[in-house]
Amino acid sequence: MGASTDPRLKEVLASLVKHLHAFAKEIELRQEEWDIAIDFLTETGQICSEERQEFILLSDVLGLSMLTDAINNRRPSGATESTVRGPFHVANAPIREMGDSINLDGKGESCQFEGRVIDIHGDPIAGACVDVWSDDADGFYDVQKPGEIPKWNNRGRFITGPDGQYRYTGIKPVSYPIPDDGPVGQMLGKIGRHPFRPAHMHFMVTAPSHETIVTHTFVAEDPYLLDDAVFGVKETLIAPFEHIGRDTEWRSKFDFVMVPTGREDGK
Amino acid sequence: MGASTDPRLKEVLASLVKHLHAFAKEIELRQEEWDIAIDFLTETGQICSEERQEFILLSDVLGLSMLTDAINNRRPSGATESTVRGPFHVANAPIREMGDSINLDGKGESCQFEGRVIDIHGDPIAGACVDVWSDDADGFYDVQKPGEIPKWNNRGRFITGPDGQYRYTGIKPVSYPIPDDGPVGQMLGKIGRHPFRPAHMHFMVTAPSHETIVTHTFVAEDPYLLDDAVFGVKETLIAPFEHIGRDTEWRSKFDFVMVPTGREDGK
Repeated sequence: MGASTDPRLKEVLASLVKHLHAFAKEIELRQEEWDIAIDFLTETGQICSEERQEFILLSDVLGLSMLTDAINNRRPSGATESTVRGPFHVANAPIREMGDSINLDGKGESCQFEGRVIDIHGDPIAGACVDVWSDDADGFYDVQKPGEIPKWNNRGRFITGPDGQYRYTGIKPVSYPIPDDGPVGQMLGKIGRHPFRPAHMHFMVTAPSHETIVTHTFVAEDPYLLDDAVFGVKETLIAPFEHIGRDTEWRSKFDFVMVPTGREDGK
Repeated sequence: MGASTDPRLKEVLASLVKHLHAFAKEIELRQEEWDIAIDFLTETGQICSEERQEFILLSDVLGLSMLTDAINNRRPSGATESTVRGPFHVANAPIREMGDSINLDGKGESCQFEGRVIDIHGDPIAGACVDVWSDDADGFYDVQKPGEIPKWNNRGRFITGPDGQYRYTGIKPVSYPIPDDGPVGQMLGKIGRHPFRPAHMHFMVTAPSHETIVTHTFVAEDPYLLDDAVFGVKETLIAPFEHIGRDTEWRSKFDFVMVPTGREDGK
């Protein structure tokens, strides 16, 4: 590499080549396996579109996404833990009034999500943006079926007031398979792994002078909690879902604890 | 992975995950670098087409193709060494008469290629197929400019007779840049590496009961011989190119030494 190469790029590529070659040597990579790998990567790239990101799926199922998350989000005890963003976040979802519903298609079991955005001392954070998204009652995000599912179904952003409270109505999420009709799904099939993720609500919480939290809350008692296809579950992210009123009405309370940016500890 | 997973697939994927994670940990992969990597791989896949294989280029410039070649082609001393196949081989090129020209566009400096296909004891191999391909006088393979360059320009297959001889007329190949207008070329630019390959003629030699040879002969005295963008040069593959007649007429002699399949030694 040239003398004027960015030092970080040089470090990353030198390490990549070292580990890539170590991998090929360890398994004595066969020519026909190299051919399969080239085809696999090509298909993975070609199936990507505005609505689908197969390389993120690949990173997810290989545990790389969670490892990257762990490296980049070392937070003090008590702060909300992070997990994978996943491929279905869409920027600039509608900002809604506190208490509004994000469920536009009327399908699914109603659930009221509520809680507070607080700092590590328990004080409320005003002006925090709680960006939420989940699948629908059939296990699909709106972007997976554009035209069929209303745009922004089960998505929205909520801005906290002085009390740090957030509250909105969505649905109790359902477990669903990651898209398994492409190269990554075929790989999972070949190694006897199911493609399911335990039910979860996505959150991205941002606030001035605080580290952004990208996380989920998981529905307690989901059958896939111990066997998430993308390894995203952390115990502290399993949230209570309690009945309110009828059988199909739920409430889930969860507080988000943010840490200030520019800490000395951690990264 | 499931109990019924193919043992080799299990071995390969377990090793891949181990080395991939070791890489991410060693460099403390940053979230924004992971984003760049996802975009890079996606673009690399999306630029692939019938005429272009950007993942092979990526494997080539990272030295993985040559490493795979080395792992898979351990041959006894005296046998012809192999090198990268590259992305421009096309199966089923026309079978031509011995001595024919493969140069269909009439451009470039004429060169007569000749030699023998022999076994490790020096005995001629009859019925060997010598499949050859090179760039044109401007540094392009026919498949890079379909419609513009005649199909099968500078390609052909020749079948040896009892004397094991091959002979055909092509052009003295020229050094050329690998396609550098895509993600791989951009990467090379960022790390101050040029995209050039030293001039070479490609050969794939097949014969019953013998290991297929995939290799090049390199034009001696090429300025890029010591700095091939894909690390493909081996000293034994540097061939003489001597003048015959006029300044623009050349001859290059090279013998191919094949080894039988199913040897005890080597791989």
